[in-house]
Amino acid sequence: MPRRRRVDIVLDSVKRLQRIGATANLLNVLRKQHPADLAQVLGDLPPVERRSAFATLIEHDGGMAMRAAAEIDRELGAELLGDRPADELARLFPQLQPDDAAALIDRLPEELSASVLDLMRQREADDVQQLLEHDERTAGRIMNPEVFALPESLSVGGAIAALQGSRNVEMVFYLYVVDEENRLVGVVSLRRLLLVPAETPLRAIMTKEPIRTRVETHQEDAAREVADYNLLAIPVVDADDKLAGVITVDDVIDVIKDEATEDMLRLAGVAADESVSTSPFVAWRKRLPWLAINLATAVLAAMVVQRFQATIDRVVALAAFMTIVASMGGNAAIQTLTVIVRGMALGELTWGSSWRALGKEVVVGLANGVLFGVVGAGVAWWSVGNPYFGGVLALAMVINLLVAAFAATLIPMVLRALRADPALASAVFITTLTDVLGFFAFLGLATFFLPFL
Amino acid sequence: MPRRRRVDIVLDSVKRLQRIGATANLLNVLRKQHPADLAQVLGDLPPVERRSAFATLIEHDGGMAMRAAAEIDRELGAELLGDRPADELARLFPQLQPDDAAALIDRLPEELSASVLDLMRQREADDVQQLLEHDERTAGRIMNPEVFALPESLSVGGAIAALQGSRNVEMVFYLYVVDEENRLVGVVSLRRLLLVPAETPLRAIMTKEPIRTRVETHQEDAAREVADYNLLAIPVVDADDKLAGVITVDDVIDVIKDEATEDMLRLAGVAADESVSTSPFVAWRKRLPWLAINLATAVLAAMVVQRFQATIDRVVALAAFMTIVASMGGNAAIQTLTVIVRGMALGELTWGSSWRALGKEVVVGLANGVLFGVVGAGVAWWSVGNPYFGGVLALAMVINLLVAAFAATLIPMVLRALRADPALASAVFITTLTDVLGFFAFLGLATFFLPFL
Repeated sequence: MPRRRRVDIVLDSVKRLQRIGATANLLNVLRKQHPADLAQVLGDLPPVERRSAFATLIEHDGGMAMRAAAEIDRELGAELLGDRPADELARLFPQLQPDDAAALIDRLPEELSASVLDLMRQREADDVQQLLEHDERTAGRIMNPEVFALPESLSVGGAIAALQGSRNVEMVFYLYVVDEENRLVGVVSLRRLLLVPAETPLRAIMTKEPIRTRVETHQEDAAREVADYNLLAIPVVDADDKLAGVITVDDVIDVIKDEATEDMLRLAGVAADESVSTSPFVAWRKRLPWLAINLATAVLAAMVVQRFQATIDRVVALAAFMTIVASMGGNAAIQTLTVIVRGMALGELTWGSSWRALGKEVVVGLANGVLFGVVGAGVAWWSVGNPYFGGVLALAMVINLLVAAFAATLIPMVLRALRADPALASAVFITTLTDVLGFFAFLGLATFFLPFL
Repeated sequence: MPRRRRVDIVLDSVKRLQRIGATANLLNVLRKQHPADLAQVLGDLPPVERRSAFATLIEHDGGMAMRAAAEIDRELGAELLGDRPADELARLFPQLQPDDAAALIDRLPEELSASVLDLMRQREADDVQQLLEHDERTAGRIMNPEVFALPESLSVGGAIAALQGSRNVEMVFYLYVVDEENRLVGVVSLRRLLLVPAETPLRAIMTKEPIRTRVETHQEDAAREVADYNLLAIPVVDADDKLAGVITVDDVIDVIKDEATEDMLRLAGVAADESVSTSPFVAWRKRLPWLAINLATAVLAAMVVQRFQATIDRVVALAAFMTIVASMGGNAAIQTLTVIVRGMALGELTWGSSWRALGKEVVVGLANGVLFGVVGAGVAWWSVGNPYFGGVLALAMVINLLVAAFAATLIPMVLRALRADPALASAVFITTLTDVLGFFAFLGLATFFLPFL
């Protein structure tokens, strides 16, 4: 049965059991699900039913509730946990992987997260605390500090025995080999252990100088290494090359999804952490600044138009056709901006190839400017009955599409050079620029050629 | 050393060795790289140097050249291979995983790919042919048909022996267990093999009813299952539940990156496969249709303005302020559209939660409409000196932001219901709608209240 249908069936029976108040049956259904499916069901429930189902679950099966909270959209997970008492959370968080726990605790209301961490420290559960000391979005923040490492002198048989004694073997894909000072010196895949005699020392079969990343590396760069080298996990080392943790491929997938989502949302002028389940009030508050900036810049564009009011007063058809120049510039700019920002995120656009990309965009902009300038000029000539009117439109179109190409390539390049997020050169700024310059070019040229119009 | 710096150093020495024509040294440097790093170096080289370096490599180390071509951006990989003779390619493709080979062959010029497949069939390398029979973007197209499967009666010791005899063990993460008719009945992780006595039958330790996907499932859905259930691989079965192949997590990462990239590019009105390395001519040709649609719709918007020419002729300030209403509607619509399309791609937005999402967007649109309507009205009143002028702007703003909220939520929902890509409700269409309706609402209201303006 396809997953969507399975989830829908569970969703229906959860709703039904909630309506008739059959708590024992409800609990039974919820506990039978895979945490990922349970997360999907919780996400699909309306807010009130979601809170109630989660409360039922956490009171009877804390571990399952925590796993579901870790699988669900992070904001939503933190929202569900935010209703719970601190001592319950401090007792349950250690059941999660430290990296999942850290991500959730970080999103709890400040007061609650402080008391949860305080209570957890009393229980000596300070793994999470350590992760939270690293900057957000670094490898150190998302790694799992419980990494399986063995000394290089150990034999394969010894390694297998150690593996059998380890309580948390589920996410072990590689054995990392360390020297006496816990410095990373090698790696052995589990597969390799199966293929060699038990008495072989790890030193003899390990891959030396394994690929590694550092605690302060940006999570996107660490994820890209796992993706590009087709790894299942990447070890994380500190400044002294000592093994500090490991990032597994399942977390890498989350990073790749999150970063792509962020880029898309930022480009559109939406907060990086908004999702469809964000409440209307929070969504409104977070989109507000971008729309406020847009209002300010739209007023700027309107003032440009106002400067040419005398010209429009003489040839009122200009008011209609100026919008075409602005709209074409805006859309061409968004095309360029998206290709550039995505190319940067995928690591395809380096400093050297940036200049080639600029050349490409200018060529494309010029070709489109000439083509659509001529077509637009034809439409304008036919509609207004004046060839000069068409000529002004064509010239303004070429100028505006060239501006669009330059701005939409150079602005993200400059932002990246300044170590800001290139996606912040969002649609809002770029379309303002093409509006302002589109109006200015068209109406300015029209004013210059006014005697002919 | 961070990867970027390492790649830059290799890049510089490749350029230098090419300049002085030191082919042997060049080859030496290229062959020492990880295929992923080599792909990065090739991608960063200017086109002429890239082709020349790749030709040197493929003539001396065909396997390495193919692995690099499989790691690089797919269009670029196919472009590099497109220069080579068919018999060379037919000889080298079998060195790649069948799924990587299929993806590249599929992008070769039609004539070349036909003769390559023909030559490969003569060598009985028909794995690739089989993959290409499945639809694009399905699990069957991207799976690896060389899946490691064993009968349920085999013991753990027998399984380890089979594993040791397998030539392609690198990407084996799970042992799939099948019955006599090759139907999938269970799965055993490699880790589990290490932890039980050799004589245990697989039947006793396998997980029954493993998560699976079907050959015709969309690659995005298959990838989502691997991501959500934190798997390393997912088995692919045919209509009779027979094991047909396996999709590993490294391919899942590629699918997730590709699908996110596609959504972003489509939203912006760019072809899903354009990248920064696409040639200017191809990029121009592929962006053309969207800009042509935009020109047509911009002309439509201009015609709406022209209809109200008499009104603008009387109150010329309307020409400036109509652009504010259109711009705010366009940007608010892009915000909503992006959140909705991304929510659908991440599987967060189901049919049930869609209506809640619509409610949220309408509330946000109304709140923003009222807020920015009032602010905009203030600016207009102050600038034009007429309170009615401000009132008209406020009312038009509320109408246009409500239209934006409805359109940007409902259009992707309808597209999805029609099984089209919701991302096709791109910025181009949505901003036209908000332009047309923004102009219409503002100028229409202005015409109605003309005696007061």
